[in-house]
Amino acid sequence: MDPFLQAAIDQAILGRDEGGIPIGSVLVIADQIVGRGHNRRVQNGSPVLHAEMDALENAGRLTAADYAAATLYSTLSPCDMCSGAALLYKIPRIVVGENQTFSGPEEYVRSRGVSLEVVSDPTCIELMRAFIDQHAELWNEDIGI
Amino acid sequence: MDPFLQAAIDQAILGRDEGGIPIGSVLVIADQIVGRGHNRRVQNGSPVLHAEMDALENAGRLTAADYAAATLYSTLSPCDMCSGAALLYKIPRIVVGENQTFSGPEEYVRSRGVSLEVVSDPTCIELMRAFIDQHAELWNEDIGI
Repeated sequence: MDPFLQAAIDQAILGRDEGGIPIGSVLVIADQIVGRGHNRRVQNGSPVLHAEMDALENAGRLTAADYAAATLYSTLSPCDMCSGAALLYKIPRIVVGENQTFSGPEEYVRSRGVSLEVVSDPTCIELMRAFIDQHAELWNEDIGI
Repeated sequence: MDPFLQAAIDQAILGRDEGGIPIGSVLVIADQIVGRGHNRRVQNGSPVLHAEMDALENAGRLTAADYAAATLYSTLSPCDMCSGAALLYKIPRIVVGENQTFSGPEEYVRSRGVSLEVVSDPTCIELMRAFIDQHAELWNEDIGI
């Protein structure tokens, strides 16, 4: 297991155990995690702190050179908002745990020059499947449905 | 002057007077402002709270039906991140103060079915021109350059 994807999964599990939506993310620069995050819709009442946004927020203000050397890990395929954040900051590489329970605009992101890899990790899939089974309405709210 | 664009400009001026980047936004549903926001990079050290994100955050958790009836006003053309947030929540209409000092992915947003109108308001243009003249480095950081 990629230790950075594992760190994102650890964030997802932390979020789940807080009663939240089990999606986690880490931002990595030069083999160091500079920001960790998980979805905070339930915990903070936040519509903007998806896991990736939370990781970017927790990384703080970075330079364009920092982002140019970064990889964004997420347990789930990034939505339009989170994909847009990666495009804004020109993060060149995104590693996605899974895109079977939800898929963001992956082809558009690739068309903008980003390397986007999907691992199809069974733990990531199971975390979301179990959550969606139990909390379909909350999940739909998180993806604008 | 459209009172909602004026409310977004008021937010931009508030941000400027706090020492921040002068971009403001409001989210409007049924002729009521449900969220006001301004860029908080300087004030909160936040890379994700652009004006539009701050307005969405301050509006709190809304339903898909709420967003479907919403208009997002911003003094400046929304960047990839803020455009992505509007796409995630399927906000059908965006009113933009100006796109001369910066332009986000407007054609892509329109291609996804959003009505995006550009007012070319002189006050919005002047707020950004004056800021960029004095703080080019900070402005570049905000747009990932």
